[in-house]
Amino acid sequence: MTKHLISLAAVLALSAPAIAQDEPEGAPSPNQIVADAQAGEWVAIAGEDLLVMTLAPAADGSVRQVVMQLMPAPFSAGWTGNIRKLARAQWYDGISINRVQDNYVVQWGDPNVDNPEATGPEKALPADLATMTDGDYIIAGEAIGLSTLAADTQRDLALDTDGMAGTDPTTGIILANGLVDSYAQLSLFHEGWPLASDMGGDNEGEAHVWPIHCYGMIGVGRGYSPDTGTGAELYTVIGHAPRHLDRNIALVGRIVEGIEHLSSLPRGTGDLGFYEDPAQRVPILSIRVASDLAPGERPQFSYLDTDSESFARYADARANRRDPFFIVPAGGADICNIPVPVKRLSE
Amino acid sequence: MTKHLISLAAVLALSAPAIAQDEPEGAPSPNQIVADAQAGEWVAIAGEDLLVMTLAPAADGSVRQVVMQLMPAPFSAGWTGNIRKLARAQWYDGISINRVQDNYVVQWGDPNVDNPEATGPEKALPADLATMTDGDYIIAGEAIGLSTLAADTQRDLALDTDGMAGTDPTTGIILANGLVDSYAQLSLFHEGWPLASDMGGDNEGEAHVWPIHCYGMIGVGRGYSPDTGTGAELYTVIGHAPRHLDRNIALVGRIVEGIEHLSSLPRGTGDLGFYEDPAQRVPILSIRVASDLAPGERPQFSYLDTDSESFARYADARANRRDPFFIVPAGGADICNIPVPVKRLSE
Repeated sequence: MTKHLISLAAVLALSAPAIAQDEPEGAPSPNQIVADAQAGEWVAIAGEDLLVMTLAPAADGSVRQVVMQLMPAPFSAGWTGNIRKLARAQWYDGISINRVQDNYVVQWGDPNVDNPEATGPEKALPADLATMTDGDYIIAGEAIGLSTLAADTQRDLALDTDGMAGTDPTTGIILANGLVDSYAQLSLFHEGWPLASDMGGDNEGEAHVWPIHCYGMIGVGRGYSPDTGTGAELYTVIGHAPRHLDRNIALVGRIVEGIEHLSSLPRGTGDLGFYEDPAQRVPILSIRVASDLAPGERPQFSYLDTDSESFARYADARANRRDPFFIVPAGGADICNIPVPVKRLSE
Repeated sequence: MTKHLISLAAVLALSAPAIAQDEPEGAPSPNQIVADAQAGEWVAIAGEDLLVMTLAPAADGSVRQVVMQLMPAPFSAGWTGNIRKLARAQWYDGISINRVQDNYVVQWGDPNVDNPEATGPEKALPADLATMTDGDYIIAGEAIGLSTLAADTQRDLALDTDGMAGTDPTTGIILANGLVDSYAQLSLFHEGWPLASDMGGDNEGEAHVWPIHCYGMIGVGRGYSPDTGTGAELYTVIGHAPRHLDRNIALVGRIVEGIEHLSSLPRGTGDLGFYEDPAQRVPILSIRVASDLAPGERPQFSYLDTDSESFARYADARANRRDPFFIVPAGGADICNIPVPVKRLSE
């Protein structure tokens, strides 16, 4: 690589695989910290929580596979249950990616639902899908052991910019370290997921928490309220975190591998990035629950325990880069700029 | 579009062209507010500040043109001056896009600079390029009339979440409304650009301001400090705002049209998204200053005055969606989720 490339590379290493050989001596980069994490700090993702989406092959014939991780209960359990049912009914097989809007979302589903320009019949949905309400977009903080902190404590946490991962003393939950959040009283990590909370500020002291729209998160398309969607229509974020969607749409998981097969698709030229020509849609051949695949075909992934020491050091390094390229550490970060490390298990 | 698509469309309208016909009665969406802005609220962008980059045609033969807007002085003036010199020397003609890293950057420059695998000679740079220092990444707040506010005032501004655009009473500068910023004491808009400031907190009361790494912003590749880069190597952000780069690299402008020609490119498979096969690089045919083009070929753009009433209403609506799809207004936003509206003038 050229000098400039090596150099800028040092800056941009954060979201790339660890490349220690490209980095001079100095404080470890976030990637180096992750690469040095102990085996025991990684948590295996259950096969029931992994979905393998296979797209039609690329123009050059190469395989396009995307692996999704569903959020575990108590988050969005009604929708994730529906998604497993739809996958096991092979309902998703043959639907398509219908929309790609730059700096926003890639969306897939049945292109013929209520479509005046339908090119075929709508696909019937399984009869036993669960129906959720707007209230299911959030859960009580107590459900994950999150206590309600005093307002002044919230502010101290929110304004702490020393970059160290803070811990809620009453719960042990690692808080998004010194993360001043633009959309909530507090943002935090819990069991590998980025969450936000009102810390009771919006609700007479009863704290609520909800998953947030970071890059790669997967949400459920819906009609106007009270419709909350079923999980048959999904989208993933391919741009700056659209946090204004938090608490307004169900989030059900995230892409853990292969998002480039979605984010690099041609942008749609219709309103909101919809493909105007049906031929532009990308066929989805199948979506399968990993645990239903033959043993040899099951992808295995793990995430870095967000309660671990290495994660705290990683989060701190994301908020305060001290590796050689940097001149001024930021002194903070937003939670969507601290992606939870996920890796495919090599076996 | 299907019911789900129409519905999700209503949510996702924010970053799309105004589509009033798709939206039911209700509070205006951010796009509707922009569409309704008065002609006098739009500010023409000088031809000297617009660069037209023409890429090699796409596989289907279609033209790929990207329009960039350079930041006006006093921001990054040394680098933007170099970039105009490089464009007028036609130095950029024949270089290429060498790197595309998902959720991060697209980078272009001379692929043969200090490259052990060079396929040709390095291009000599013009002799009269300016050399900048790390100190040039920030400027004094006074340079844009930004006064230093008392710490308690800063906090009040930073924690104001009523969503209304606030105005610094001493300067009239519209502050990023109710924007709790994760990376600085304050973020604000000034003459069409998103900026952040320490409000003196980092420097014995002397406020500094600097441009920030939002989606589509353009930065200058550099070597290790004290190198600050020349402007010959550039990148643009195609993912979540990498704000940790603020104050560490020079920002010189933003993409105002055609970013999809960059953001939808295949991701590189080498470290940091570099293309491993030189054949994967995308040739840049030319980069021209708009004012140097023939009158009929000069693109003309304007931005929504960030001191205007319509911008204040737009920013408020971005932070507090009240159009029909939404159930819970966010109550705030981060500055990179309030993109400054820019439009091509229709004539």
